[in-house]
Amino acid sequence: MRILVVNVNTTAAMTDSIAAQARAVARPGTEIVGLTPSFGPESVEGNFESYLSAVAVMDRVQAYDGQYDAVVQAGFGEHGREGLQELCDVPVVDITEAAAHVACLLGRKYAVVTTLSRAVGQIEDRLMLAGLHTRCASVRASGLSVLELEEDQDAAVKAIAEQARLSVEQDGAEVVCLGCGGMAGLDAEIRAATGAPVVDGVAAAVALAEALVGLGLTTSKIGSYAAPRPKTVTGWPVSGSPR
Amino acid sequence: MRILVVNVNTTAAMTDSIAAQARAVARPGTEIVGLTPSFGPESVEGNFESYLSAVAVMDRVQAYDGQYDAVVQAGFGEHGREGLQELCDVPVVDITEAAAHVACLLGRKYAVVTTLSRAVGQIEDRLMLAGLHTRCASVRASGLSVLELEEDQDAAVKAIAEQARLSVEQDGAEVVCLGCGGMAGLDAEIRAATGAPVVDGVAAAVALAEALVGLGLTTSKIGSYAAPRPKTVTGWPVSGSPR
Amino acid sequence: MRILVVNVNTTAAMTDSIAAQARAVARPGTEIVGLTPSFGPESVEGNFESYLSAVAVMDRVQAYDGQYDAVVQAGFGEHGREGLQELCDVPVVDITEAAAHVACLLGRKYAVVTTLSRAVGQIEDRLMLAGLHTRCASVRASGLSVLELEEDQDAAVKAIAEQARLSVEQDGAEVVCLGCGGMAGLDAEIRAATGAPVVDGVAAAVALAEALVGLGLTTSKIGSYAAPRPKTVTGWPVSGSPR
Amino acid sequence: MRILVVNVNTTAAMTDSIAAQARAVARPGTEIVGLTPSFGPESVEGNFESYLSAVAVMDRVQAYDGQYDAVVQAGFGEHGREGLQELCDVPVVDITEAAAHVACLLGRKYAVVTTLSRAVGQIEDRLMLAGLHTRCASVRASGLSVLELEEDQDAAVKAIAEQARLSVEQDGAEVVCLGCGGMAGLDAEIRAATGAPVVDGVAAAVALAEALVGLGLTTSKIGSYAAPRPKTVTGWPVSGSPR
Amino acid sequence: MRILVVNVNTTAAMTDSIAAQARAVARPGTEIVGLTPSFGPESVEGNFESYLSAVAVMDRVQAYDGQYDAVVQAGFGEHGREGLQELCDVPVVDITEAAAHVACLLGRKYAVVTTLSRAVGQIEDRLMLAGLHTRCASVRASGLSVLELEEDQDAAVKAIAEQARLSVEQDGAEVVCLGCGGMAGLDAEIRAATGAPVVDGVAAAVALAEALVGLGLTTSKIGSYAAPRPKTVTGWPVSGSPR
Amino acid sequence: MRILVVNVNTTAAMTDSIAAQARAVARPGTEIVGLTPSFGPESVEGNFESYLSAVAVMDRVQAYDGQYDAVVQAGFGEHGREGLQELCDVPVVDITEAAAHVACLLGRKYAVVTTLSRAVGQIEDRLMLAGLHTRCASVRASGLSVLELEEDQDAAVKAIAEQARLSVEQDGAEVVCLGCGGMAGLDAEIRAATGAPVVDGVAAAVALAEALVGLGLTTSKIGSYAAPRPKTVTGWPVSGSPR
Repeated sequence: MRILVVNVNTTAAMTDSIAAQARAVARPGTEIVGLTPSFGPESVEGNFESYLSAVAVMDRVQAYDGQYDAVVQAGFGEHGREGLQELCDVPVVDITEAAAHVACLLGRKYAVVTTLSRAVGQIEDRLMLAGLHTRCASVRASGLSVLELEEDQDAAVKAIAEQARLSVEQDGAEVVCLGCGGMAGLDAEIRAATGAPVVDGVAAAVALAEALVGLGLTTSKIGSYAAPRPKTVTGWPVSGSPR
Repeated sequence: MRILVVNVNTTAAMTDSIAAQARAVARPGTEIVGLTPSFGPESVEGNFESYLSAVAVMDRVQAYDGQYDAVVQAGFGEHGREGLQELCDVPVVDITEAAAHVACLLGRKYAVVTTLSRAVGQIEDRLMLAGLHTRCASVRASGLSVLELEEDQDAAVKAIAEQARLSVEQDGAEVVCLGCGGMAGLDAEIRAATGAPVVDGVAAAVALAEALVGLGLTTSKIGSYAAPRPKTVTGWPVSGSPR
Repeated sequence: MRILVVNVNTTAAMTDSIAAQARAVARPGTEIVGLTPSFGPESVEGNFESYLSAVAVMDRVQAYDGQYDAVVQAGFGEHGREGLQELCDVPVVDITEAAAHVACLLGRKYAVVTTLSRAVGQIEDRLMLAGLHTRCASVRASGLSVLELEEDQDAAVKAIAEQARLSVEQDGAEVVCLGCGGMAGLDAEIRAATGAPVVDGVAAAVALAEALVGLGLTTSKIGSYAAPRPKTVTGWPVSGSPR
Repeated sequence: MRILVVNVNTTAAMTDSIAAQARAVARPGTEIVGLTPSFGPESVEGNFESYLSAVAVMDRVQAYDGQYDAVVQAGFGEHGREGLQELCDVPVVDITEAAAHVACLLGRKYAVVTTLSRAVGQIEDRLMLAGLHTRCASVRASGLSVLELEEDQDAAVKAIAEQARLSVEQDGAEVVCLGCGGMAGLDAEIRAATGAPVVDGVAAAVALAEALVGLGLTTSKIGSYAAPRPKTVTGWPVSGSPR
Repeated sequence: MRILVVNVNTTAAMTDSIAAQARAVARPGTEIVGLTPSFGPESVEGNFESYLSAVAVMDRVQAYDGQYDAVVQAGFGEHGREGLQELCDVPVVDITEAAAHVACLLGRKYAVVTTLSRAVGQIEDRLMLAGLHTRCASVRASGLSVLELEEDQDAAVKAIAEQARLSVEQDGAEVVCLGCGGMAGLDAEIRAATGAPVVDGVAAAVALAEALVGLGLTTSKIGSYAAPRPKTVTGWPVSGSPR
Repeated sequence: MRILVVNVNTTAAMTDSIAAQARAVARPGTEIVGLTPSFGPESVEGNFESYLSAVAVMDRVQAYDGQYDAVVQAGFGEHGREGLQELCDVPVVDITEAAAHVACLLGRKYAVVTTLSRAVGQIEDRLMLAGLHTRCASVRASGLSVLELEEDQDAAVKAIAEQARLSVEQDGAEVVCLGCGGMAGLDAEIRAATGAPVVDGVAAAVALAEALVGLGLTTSKIGSYAAPRPKTVTGWPVSGSPR
């Protein structure tokens, strides 16, 4: 099967690292296609950027010229998943929700450790919309921006491990989710620091997408995620003519 | 004061009717500027369209070349308000939330009567994010699309009044909110049919925007709605160069 | 328009300062009438006093001999608003709810800073009944009584600012509500100390009352707040014969 | 032990029937003292009346010249229990909460069948404040006023039984609470009509009050229900000089 | 009346102390029969043990050869109450829920102080299922195991008092529940340390069971707790042939 | 990998059909081992049976003499998953939760269609404990017992399809979960009847177990699901000596 793993920002190096993380967990026979939006912010930190990114992700998937079996939206806490579900019949898996679903299967409460404090509320909102908030012990910020994460892995591990430890000791978390697409690959170190299972959203999303495709299940088209109605949509796709 | 009232779709006639509704309730001294996005769907019915519209609304406000004191986002149940709040220091009022806030001041439970059934979940989600869901008795669909509403007012009144009546009799609603920017002007008829106060979101939002400006209050910039961080954002503004 | 602003306690000086705060934000053309109950406690701190005050406020409004367009109940976290709504066709706005509604329009989470710790639960209850609790980050007590607030403004500012600061730093508040009618006028100082927008309930309530009157909306009479049924009510009004 | 059972309205005949119901379940050695407020409405149906009644009940208890071990507030869904708790060290049991507590011990979900539809929201609010709402399947109105209940027992039984039956069949209730102090004595008939255990609030409250007194437990005085602070309270007690 | 008080573990000395606590509060005329399961863990600390204990408790009650009027399940936060309710027509009272019901009648928020931290989530879950969680300020662990509690009363009092104090000062608890059947008898000391009413679950359950029996109420058999359907159940009762 | 799929009842034919359903969706390389408890009820319908079954399932897994990578508990809405998690380091997946997790990835709201109405509350409780209830539109009963399902497939399809249709039309469900292990294989027909994706819990659980094993994730051992403490447990394992 082929899974489109769509980065939410325009930084190609981050797409590469996300796709590498996806490939590391994908089953034999699963092809991972990493996609980078053709417009939008270089990193997504806040609602304005996230809304723009939501459209850029839909635009990029729409522009993809080939078959695919599932889509993974690889931004943590970002807007847009419901829109993608309307455009796609195949399963769409958001890494935020994937991480939380998987975490709920492993422990009674989970925490999310993310980047900047401004992301906390947005992640909480996305978890609440997804109905996954009641077992969330806390969403904590490491204080590092998305791009700082990339630049200094040691500092990243240290800052994330500290918040993960606090989530376990003070908030009752029993599982820790890495709350940024750019944290892929840090799970072993955070696990060592806390003793808790650590869930990477990209890996979780790929595994869930494979599971859904394997079960022959597709996005429900009888309600909220029915295909858009036929109508005039000016300027769409944003990046050019439709495929 | 000057309030930007931004339609969420590209249908200029609907912008006109929304702006007219806004002017009908605005205080003397309030200037209403109706804005139409330069791209996006001709009507917004679903998540894909709503996300695109969210960006188009931000783009249109960004492109506005003048001073203003508040922004009203005139789409019912649409995405995007949080993004606008990051871009603006002035108050941003979404008509969904405005209608619900006002309704809560008038009765114990309120209902929303909207257009198509596919909008119901999206409205419920936006009310939940806004913390306004616990007093919402129901969100009901009239079965009419946004554009059908415009075309046949008599049928619209009949269908909306029927659902409003059911929300009162079966769901315990004591106030009814008109759940579409295009329902402006129907309030008297729905009130007559139900005996309940009827809240139009555009009117409510203008009045709340005036109230906030009058109180000298502005969007909080210390957390979730802080201004976007400086960074490279490719393709923004979507419709052209920044003002 | 004429708005009755009813103090909840019998301290006339506090009525004056509340009315002054109301006048400071009222639009030209709005007449503020400050009313003091003819019985009840000199300050309201707790449920017994609050229930007594609820009746005293209804009694005072009933005794008012003139036309009016809206009523503001100027006690933070007090009982009684639903009873006033039954007695009045015009809009009734409670300052607790007004502050929270306004705060929700400005930031993702708000805090309330009130007087004594015994008030915290009562405020939380009133916010829950009003459906405004899900975005409340915390209700914090400054430790000062209502009358101490009046006596030493400097100490009051210091104690309130400290709790406001903690609500921002520890609880995630992005907006701060002043949780006592007697805190009117402290908003600039608390804003300076926290960087957050600060909402005074009296000011918020006056602005919302003006908005509702301007929209031509009135209290719903089809359900919970219908007028009392005709019956024998002994000893009412408490303060004398009905107008 | 001596338990004060305070009717919430001024109808002495109803006090008598409530006290009789209380005596019917009281243990040997428990003395039931029925009290009628000296002012207020002849029946309590709505918030205005309920707030006035809350004060009248506190006033009547305050005026009682003797020892007592517990107080039962015998109005269903009425305001005021928290105020009584501040005035009393002994346990205070509200019949609404007593019925719900007992019902929760007997089945997974319970319903309340009350008088007029205007009482429904008020009862729901009181149950929510008491934290007893999550197992409430529904609050249903029989359409009979408090005084009609007294006048025509046959019609009352029929109307209440019908709603009780619907609560079981449609709402999933497994226990039924009689939602009015004046429904005392109807339990056997409603039980026969539904097969569900039927809880009378007055009986439940007396039994819980006896249990609390037997356990030597009293109202907590370290927080919300601490005694009122010393201060000037004008016009209290309402009905005359304090004992 | 006769009440079966069933210990959840196989430690007979603990059954004795639980039964003694029950007898200390039982009314004259109430016979307390202490029962010890014939299999299962010597103390119950965790879900595996609790599920096994749930069956052992049902088995022990089933094997009891005599009449009885109510059953008390004397384990804090343990599974099984719903199963017992299916097997019994008489009231079944779990000490966790009994403590919380009683606490809710005494203060606005209550805390539970239990043994090991691993019990916290399980207690929270049982309170949530019982609909008693919204007024629970916190569940805190003293760090002592069930058997350590028995061995060193002084250390137990000290550790429990410390957490009780924190629940009052930091979490807003106004009442404290002793969260282990083995804490019976410590209430006076914890009360002295906190000033809060202290509820022992065994005592509370006996008093509530007496109240239910006195009211003539029994477990609802029309829904969730109907008697098991006739069918082949291999290996039941676990401890031998049915009575 | 090897997955133990444990039936919750003693009916071997049902174990066979569950294992067959599991094998039908398992990946190449996954070995499915179907296990039947050595004691307990022939079908599980209610809490008494479910608690007994919970122990029988733990007993059966404990008695399994071999390596395995994951355990699937194949009873819908049954107790026991937390206990298994304490006994196992490998992932434990309950089919109730698996179905709901998968359904949440496919539509905004899901319904469960189960067997008898007495199961409804139990399923709702398990979903609430799992934090999966907020997106559950309804749990509906077909009125067929577990064994009737097996006997008459045509009647089963008809009854289930009818409730599934109602869940979509009246409750807003967009995905339907088959709420009984014995409904395996009916998904195509229910899908045809409703247009909604249909999720079989056994299939979903196998796919999720494979995903978890593939990700190298295991049950958290730092909190609620830590291994049982060393102690005397009389009569365990129930079915014989430990492996």
